[in-house]
Amino acid sequence: MALVLTRADAQALDAADPLAPFRERFVGDGPDGSWDDDPGRRLYLDGNSLGRLPRATPAALARVVEQEWGQGLVGSWSQWVGQAGRVGDALAAGVLGARPGEVLVSDSTSVDLFKLLVAGCDARPGRDVLVCCADDFPTDRYVVAGVAGQKGMTVREVPADPDTGLDTAVLAAALDERVAVVVLSLVAYRSGALVDLAAVTALAREHGALVLWDLSHAAGAVEVDLHAGGADLAVGCTYKHLNGGPGAPAFLYVRRELQADLRQPVWGWFGQRDQFEMGPAYDPAPGVDRFAVGTPPVLATAAVEVGVALTAEAGIGPVAAKGRALTDLLVALADERLPQLRLASPRDAARRGAHVSLAHPQAWQLTQALLARDVVPDFRTPDRVRFGPAPLYTRFVDVWDAVDRLADILATDAHEAFPTERARVT
Amino acid sequence: MALVLTRADAQALDAADPLAPFRERFVGDGPDGSWDDDPGRRLYLDGNSLGRLPRATPAALARVVEQEWGQGLVGSWSQWVGQAGRVGDALAAGVLGARPGEVLVSDSTSVDLFKLLVAGCDARPGRDVLVCCADDFPTDRYVVAGVAGQKGMTVREVPADPDTGLDTAVLAAALDERVAVVVLSLVAYRSGALVDLAAVTALAREHGALVLWDLSHAAGAVEVDLHAGGADLAVGCTYKHLNGGPGAPAFLYVRRELQADLRQPVWGWFGQRDQFEMGPAYDPAPGVDRFAVGTPPVLATAAVEVGVALTAEAGIGPVAAKGRALTDLLVALADERLPQLRLASPRDAARRGAHVSLAHPQAWQLTQALLARDVVPDFRTPDRVRFGPAPLYTRFVDVWDAVDRLADILATDAHEAFPTERARVT
Repeated sequence: MALVLTRADAQALDAADPLAPFRERFVGDGPDGSWDDDPGRRLYLDGNSLGRLPRATPAALARVVEQEWGQGLVGSWSQWVGQAGRVGDALAAGVLGARPGEVLVSDSTSVDLFKLLVAGCDARPGRDVLVCCADDFPTDRYVVAGVAGQKGMTVREVPADPDTGLDTAVLAAALDERVAVVVLSLVAYRSGALVDLAAVTALAREHGALVLWDLSHAAGAVEVDLHAGGADLAVGCTYKHLNGGPGAPAFLYVRRELQADLRQPVWGWFGQRDQFEMGPAYDPAPGVDRFAVGTPPVLATAAVEVGVALTAEAGIGPVAAKGRALTDLLVALADERLPQLRLASPRDAARRGAHVSLAHPQAWQLTQALLARDVVPDFRTPDRVRFGPAPLYTRFVDVWDAVDRLADILATDAHEAFPTERARVT
Repeated sequence: MALVLTRADAQALDAADPLAPFRERFVGDGPDGSWDDDPGRRLYLDGNSLGRLPRATPAALARVVEQEWGQGLVGSWSQWVGQAGRVGDALAAGVLGARPGEVLVSDSTSVDLFKLLVAGCDARPGRDVLVCCADDFPTDRYVVAGVAGQKGMTVREVPADPDTGLDTAVLAAALDERVAVVVLSLVAYRSGALVDLAAVTALAREHGALVLWDLSHAAGAVEVDLHAGGADLAVGCTYKHLNGGPGAPAFLYVRRELQADLRQPVWGWFGQRDQFEMGPAYDPAPGVDRFAVGTPPVLATAAVEVGVALTAEAGIGPVAAKGRALTDLLVALADERLPQLRLASPRDAARRGAHVSLAHPQAWQLTQALLARDVVPDFRTPDRVRFGPAPLYTRFVDVWDAVDRLADILATDAHEAFPTERARVT
């Protein structure tokens, strides 16, 4: 097969990449954290699972640990009490298109989803249906099922195409005046399929329903404009494209105009007005602080702050554009060189996030073979190899080399040497 | 007034203290983290609010950040998936008197309290009353109120003496066959009053009720024997006497025999059996993992691991004994030298944790005056100065010097110079 896209083509794209300098802001794979061009270097294409370590993070963490905790001790709470809102505001302004006082860093995505889902249900009394997508990430479906069970509500699981995502017309057919809340990922975790935030929000609103967006695969990967799109509720993850570190705290968003009417169900002391009064009854704080629960995770949030600042500095527009270009290159190369794999993501870059999946019956073995050659994708059930070339630190030539190694694996049947049985924990 | 207890007496207690070497395992107040004997040195008596930084923590965190995250990237999940249970097992064995597989590090204390309270209610169908203590920490009371409201249950708030704590006979009068769960702190957050875990557990069980213990002020401060005491459910904090860092993740305990019958309400993907199957329906993991929710906080838990290991190494028996001796000294010195303040904690060391409170109408001003002289206690509403001389790093002479400075403040009316109006955030 004649190569239409050469390695030199990829290098030319890198040379023209305005975000190229951001790679040096992250720790590379050398023992000293350097980046090299060794042909056998690691090709990390799983930034949508766990983002890389920003170079500035260790020092920021050390400052919080050694100075603020070690020296400042309990007195540092005067700074820490504002941290969750400050990092939330940075996310709002730089990543999410939200206004100040609408975003809070808090808990895990799953816990935040639970909190806002219950709050949303309680804001729609008399409605007894929750809608989610049958192809959505497990936590989204499970949290919906759990809340529905506790509240005696019914779940409508809307089918979605596993490759191209949710058809808005199919969603529309599931909406009526019984629906309290729709839970939906803006970017699908396997296919990367992107839905139209403003259109779905408006559609749900026609029926009086709220949409609770899961932005985990969207934040830091695509343009999100919660305010312009009229979004009411959202949660998301900071350890993927926002590079906040493993298990980093999540964020939640509640539209300003809704905050006073919403109450989340976990009544912890950090959601309390005049918290240190230690008063007799729970009286939720005004503003987004009412969605806080326990004592906030100061050390972990310090790492989130660094990651968020990097994306904000690069600009979500350029980041998202590069994400489309990187995945476009991957799709074009797969078309040319990986005919054995089927594209399991939207072909139109405008309809996907910053990752794509390729389907193959031996996807598990192919993933193991790639890992053995220092290409790091993700396996996703049942038959997908998922590639997330994070725009801030992935080069076009990295994508080219990854496809090259995969083409070689397929040409030599190298994947046949790996067990077909999947390991239980990946 | 003749001094019965001299500074030399305190120094003699330090000389005989088997835990004295543990002070060097923590970062001190010098610019280089050293400890000094400067007469004007900071006297940190708030270890029950935020524990000090262990010397080993920065390197442990740096290893997780720079090696496991920075170099290992997503591949490090093979180690991280076991972290919450591993640190939980260390807590179980070294601090809580629980068995392997009964303790998990997870979420915040407030979130864990919510999870186990709902699980406990659901395990007692047909019962419609929750019991808590009117003098308990806000989160405990608020979470109980929130869950009761959501489930249409009634709360019975049992009164407790703000100085000497809960009278078991008063609690007994509140128990009957309508009670599903009793939520109670083992050590009261203001007075330090300690209740009898085994006796209260047995009492509740006579009525078919579960006790959900909040061990936040107990873990690492007093002997806790969850297994021998027959405890069913517990949660607690790791940033106080366990020195896990500001906002460190909490722990939860569920007695092994109960686990299969309990379901917590926040159905996240880390509580799922065969999590990476991404299966259609929530099917909780066997064992304590079913009480996990979202992706666990890896960095923060690494700091918890260091703190827990220090307490385990010292031994909870010696730690608790020193806590009693330190607070005994504080009480004796207050009797002698601070007649203006009233002991607002149990006088019998066997009936309290590792902190004591002293009451005074101008407690807020006294707290500010102490802070101005580098003594760090806590103000607690309405009129208490709370002292937590953490056994692992506080010397008897530190307690002596703190009382000496407070006596001088009172003798010179130095506190009168501080505003009577309380700051909103402390």
